[in-house]
Order: sequence, then structure tokens, then C-alpha cells
Amino acid sequence: MKNPRIYLDYNATAPLLPAAREAMLDALSLPGNPSSVHSEGRKARARVDDARRKVAGLVNASPENVIFTSGATEAASTLLSPRYRMGRSEITIGHLYFSAVEHPCITSGGRFPAGGITQIDVDHQGRVDLGDLASLLEKHDSASGMPMVSVMLANNETGVIQPVTEVSELVKGVGGLLVVDAVQAAGRIPIDMQTLGADFIFLSSHKMGGPKGAGAFIAQGEIMMPAPLITGGGQEKGHRSGTENPAALAGFGAAAQTAKDGMDMMQHVSRLRDRMEDGARMAVPDAVIYGGEAQRLPNTSFFSLPGFKAETAQIAFDLEGVALSAGSACSSGKIGPSHVLQAMGMDADQGALRASLGAATTEDEIDRFVSILKRIAEKRTLAV
Amino acid sequence: MKNPRIYLDYNATAPLLPAAREAMLDALSLPGNPSSVHSEGRKARARVDDARRKVAGLVNASPENVIFTSGATEAASTLLSPRYRMGRSEITIGHLYFSAVEHPCITSGGRFPAGGITQIDVDHQGRVDLGDLASLLEKHDSASGMPMVSVMLANNETGVIQPVTEVSELVKGVGGLLVVDAVQAAGRIPIDMQTLGADFIFLSSHKMGGPKGAGAFIAQGEIMMPAPLITGGGQEKGHRSGTENPAALAGFGAAAQTAKDGMDMMQHVSRLRDRMEDGARMAVPDAVIYGGEAQRLPNTSFFSLPGFKAETAQIAFDLEGVALSAGSACSSGKIGPSHVLQAMGMDADQGALRASLGAATTEDEIDRFVSILKRIAEKRTLAV
Repeated sequence: MKNPRIYLDYNATAPLLPAAREAMLDALSLPGNPSSVHSEGRKARARVDDARRKVAGLVNASPENVIFTSGATEAASTLLSPRYRMGRSEITIGHLYFSAVEHPCITSGGRFPAGGITQIDVDHQGRVDLGDLASLLEKHDSASGMPMVSVMLANNETGVIQPVTEVSELVKGVGGLLVVDAVQAAGRIPIDMQTLGADFIFLSSHKMGGPKGAGAFIAQGEIMMPAPLITGGGQEKGHRSGTENPAALAGFGAAAQTAKDGMDMMQHVSRLRDRMEDGARMAVPDAVIYGGEAQRLPNTSFFSLPGFKAETAQIAFDLEGVALSAGSACSSGKIGPSHVLQAMGMDADQGALRASLGAATTEDEIDRFVSILKRIAEKRTLAV
Repeated sequence: MKNPRIYLDYNATAPLLPAAREAMLDALSLPGNPSSVHSEGRKARARVDDARRKVAGLVNASPENVIFTSGATEAASTLLSPRYRMGRSEITIGHLYFSAVEHPCITSGGRFPAGGITQIDVDHQGRVDLGDLASLLEKHDSASGMPMVSVMLANNETGVIQPVTEVSELVKGVGGLLVVDAVQAAGRIPIDMQTLGADFIFLSSHKMGGPKGAGAFIAQGEIMMPAPLITGGGQEKGHRSGTENPAALAGFGAAAQTAKDGMDMMQHVSRLRDRMEDGARMAVPDAVIYGGEAQRLPNTSFFSLPGFKAETAQIAFDLEGVALSAGSACSSGKIGPSHVLQAMGMDADQGALRASLGAATTEDEIDRFVSILKRIAEKRTLAV
């Protein structure tokens, strides 16, 4: 019998969890629009409200501070705005600072003009250089408006966890706003909006086993909110218009609940990741693991096999039945050197492979992966 | 046995079609991210490509000119931009003109500043006043940039069809851009992008029996495109970033295919709508049907029962097992006078009821609805 494929690309998208699928099927069977006041509408609305409570629960936020979007990228494009509102007053954000290893949904700058953006350096492990951030904030021209800083909780390629508490202290010290991309961290490490130090975080449903097409941004308080990106019928208290999506949101809520209840599973995932990296080092003694000296997510490994281009290796793995990424998955198959490796000061020419695990990953899959890695690496030696 | 409920709110959202549900379930079972290059990613990508062909097919457009979004409101917010691109050159749109009966996703003005927007009058049937449009375009200050006109193909409340061909001639005469909201028309009347005269149309999946969370804007050509609203990974050829949603798009594609193949059903729907209106006129001789003298969608009826507030009537219908709308569904239960009735010069104080049918509506449902209407209207007489 043919071996089943090994899916090690949870950071690109996690397979749909059974609980999320069930919640979706329930919501898909309801005919109503959540904004309709009739019985059908109210039933659909109840699914949205329930999802809001569950997503808030995952990160210890107030449900009323959760604004649903179609995904994390839309949430980021909404948050990265030079215009905010506090009640009826408009507030101007003068400049956006983000770390050099942020996801493209941040590095694209959202609604900031190109001249209103500055990158923050990172160290060789990909962690924000706090000295650089402090010096940038010191030079910030407060006459232009308040500064906004955007730093991810955990990197999508390396899994490296950022010093968000320290970043927050610096940002709060100058009265700035802190936006935290929690997409890869959510469901893998505990997140508490009451202690994190972020003004806003944003999440993606499908990275935690919910469906694609759902995300959220979550405010720490409800005082300041970005000018809406999508305007129309005034859904989501006017912060995001467009018919609410009960099926996707119900799936998102179920995934958030599963992630919260199953956080212990991440110890198991962490052990498997370490087993995989130990196996990889044995099989390929010159393998390089990026960010390995920093605190990382339990599920992510970013590594290169010297002399073997990551894109070629990825294809070899795919043919052997293993799904993993060379860099990140976005950008529609666009291949280019990893900006994360470059920012870390690493040789980015041959790229790196990302293996990312989930709660459903098994020891058998990891062991099979390591033997495939060994076989592929041996071919590499022959080719060199 | 209790009578099953009668759903007459297809313009708010249509129940999910079996074909759409099946296509979604298939796509939900695939673990991949459509932007990943491995086997799992390519399978997910194939669902997106297939959906693109089907949605293009419904309106006789080229698949490469279909840009998927999370829904019609996002599509409208993207299209209503003062900044367009033609290759690498930026093009400025100087002013936005839209009819007074457009949906809130248009009347909110998208990315235009409040001072850059003018409403076009409509007649008592809610049709664009072509004389007013001509005079507005004549006065347009072309030094500010080209004019953009946004007119819906069919109104969401009344179903009235707009004279888009005539509007297009006026707009093309001054070198302007025409955006057409085809949300309610799609799947109910034939649409041909090659002859419609619009530069862009936009669609919603869930109004035609696909899932919520999918929409598209479709260009007539590929020459000019709006500055992206959501930026990041560069999906949808850079026009709309964010992980593609194969399940929602597959459902959208299946619904578009079903709508195209079943366009004949709309004759049946039209007969049912007429039967309903005849019955309503018999039961309530003073009932007013709005837009009834204009060409309308086959499925929509917008009417009022003098002396009976629409919101009260809607609740009475809900209690009797009928789902219909007082005005449109959006705006999260926000109740206010219909801007459509106001623009048509009608007394909007007591509002109006919208009954909107679908291909699954039966003669029995319509006859039951008419007798409920009669019963409710009799109570009205008692109350007066």
C-alpha cells in the first residue's frame, strides 16, 4: 500500500478541524442573513455571536472588541491606517515602523504612503533589535502624528517569538500604538490581550484549523479604531461592512475553541519538532536551522541543506509525498529570496525549507519524513 | 403538522444551493493553500481556477478579468477608488457620480472623499434620470481627473432595472468609467460583459445561492485596474491579497454555473411573483407596488400596505412563518426610512416590504403567503 502523504505545511494553512467542519455545516444549513431581523436572520446572527465569544476566549479579550474580517490580510490592511478615530475625533498616525521580518501583509504598508514607513532591524535570530526601535522612536516627529509599531508575535517562516513585552514598553513610552500580528502564534502559544501590551492583534482562522475566509482584528480597548477599510451596510458596528459569514465564522470559532482546549497538545508537537530536528542533524550534519537559538513556536522549523536549493528540495519532497514550503506560501507561487533570511543577515540565495507541524502530526510521519530527508540529502551529495 | 416556513428574502441572501454545498465540501476536504506549489496546493488552486471560469461564464467575461474578493461590498470598496493604474501609470478619477438608489456599499463612497461625490436623480420608478446624469457629466471638471459613474443593473429593494446601455453611452461620451453593481441582477437576468457597456461589474456569491464570503469584480478589459484595497502576498495578480478561499469560491462557481444553466427558471419565478402581486392586490386593494411600471427583476416585489408600518408588518409575517424584509437586510438590524423610496419621491415614513423569490419558491408557498397577507391586512383594518 502506498504511504499516505505527510503534510508539514501548517503555517501555510492547517487542514480543517472536524469541529470546524461540523460548525460550518450547521451554519451552512441556515438560510438567513445575520442582519435580517426575522427568525432565519436571528439564527444566523447567533452563530456569529457565538464565534465572537470563542475567538475572544482564545486570547482573553472582550467579545465586543473582536471585529471579524475575511482574513488576516484584510485585518492588517485595516489596522495599518494613518487615520484612526476616537469616538468622533480623527487621530492621525504619523509614521509606521515594522520589523524587517514581518509578513507581506505588513511590509506592504497598508494605507500608509511609502514615505511614511520605516523598517526596524532584527538580530541574527530574527528578533527585533530593541536598540534600533528605541532610536527610531526617539527620532519620531510627533508633530506628524503618533507613531505606530507593528511587530509579529511569532514569525511565519522561522517561528521565532518576538520580545513583544519589551517592544510594548518602548511604544507606550512614546505614546504610540502597537499592532501585533498573532496569526502564527494563535493556538500554538497562549495569548492574553490583558497582559500582551498590544493595542491591536489580528488573527487568521485557517492557520489554526478553521476555514479560509475568516479573520479578525481585536482591540485591547474600544477607544481608538482604524478608519474602516470596507464601507457599506455598517456591519461589525461600522468597522467592517459586508454581509457577515456565519459558516466561516462558526468554523473559526470552533477552531479557536479547539485550540484553547488543546493547548497542551503543543508540548507533544514541540517534542515532535525537536525529534525531527535531531533526526535532520543526524542525517545531514551540515544542515542549518534558522532561529534555533531563540524562543520559537513549538511547531515550526526553518532549515537549509547546504548545496541544495530550497525550491529544488521542496519539489523533491513533494514527489516523495511530503508537503512543506520553501519560505512562505503566499504570493501565488512567486519565488524569490526569503526577506526573513536576508533581514537576519543569512545567505538567502539557496533559500530554506519550512516544516510546520500541527496537533494531528504523528511520530510515524516525523520518522518517515526524516528518512525521506536523509534519502534526498544523499542524492544531493551525489549531485555535488 | 406545522406548515414549513416560507422564505421570501432571496435578495437578502439565497439559501445555499445543493450544487454549491457539494462543491464546498469537496474543497473543504483539501488541506492545501492555493499559493503553495506542492501537490496539496495545486489541487486547491485548481478549484479556484475552475470557479473563475464558471463565474466568468455567467457574465460572458474572460476568466483572467475576474478578481475574486470576500464579497460584493469589498469589491465595491475596491472599485470606488480615485486612484487607478494602467500598467505602471497612475490614473486619477476626479469625481464619483452614483444614482440615488444605489446600495450602501456604493453610497458610502468607497475611497472617494466626501467632497468628490455627487448623486444622480432618479424618477418615480427609481430609474436613473438620464438628463440629470448628462448635465452632471457636462459640468464635470476634467482637469480633476476622469469621471466615474456607478449605477446598479437592478435595485436590491424594488428590483427595478436601470437603463445601463443609455448610461454607458453618456459615460463613454465623456471618456468616463462605468461601474455596475450586478449583485441582484446576476443569475436573474442574462448579463453579457461584451455588450453591457460597463467597465467593471461586481457580483456577490450568496445572492445567487452560493456561500457568503465570496464575490468578485470583473473588468471588461484588463487595461485599467483600481489601486488594490487589500495589500500583502500579491494574490489575484496583485489586485487583491489574502489567501484564496477555495471552498467559498468553488461554491460561488457552482452557483454561477447553476444560475447560468437554469436561467429559464426565471420565467417560472416571474409568473409566481406576478401571481403573488395579483393576490396581494386582491387581498389589499390599496396596496402600493413600487417600481411596478418599470422593467423589473423577475423575483422581486416591493410594496406597502397603507396604514401599516412595514417594520410591524414584517414582524407579523415572521410570526406567521414568512421571512421577508422591510427595506434591505444590511446594516445590522439598523432600521431607518428606505433611501430608495425617498429618492423615488415616495412617502417613506411607513416603509415598504420586500418579498424576493428564488428558483426553489413554489406556487403553494406563494398561495400560502397571499392568504397570510390577507389575514394580516384584515388585522390592520381592525387596528385602524
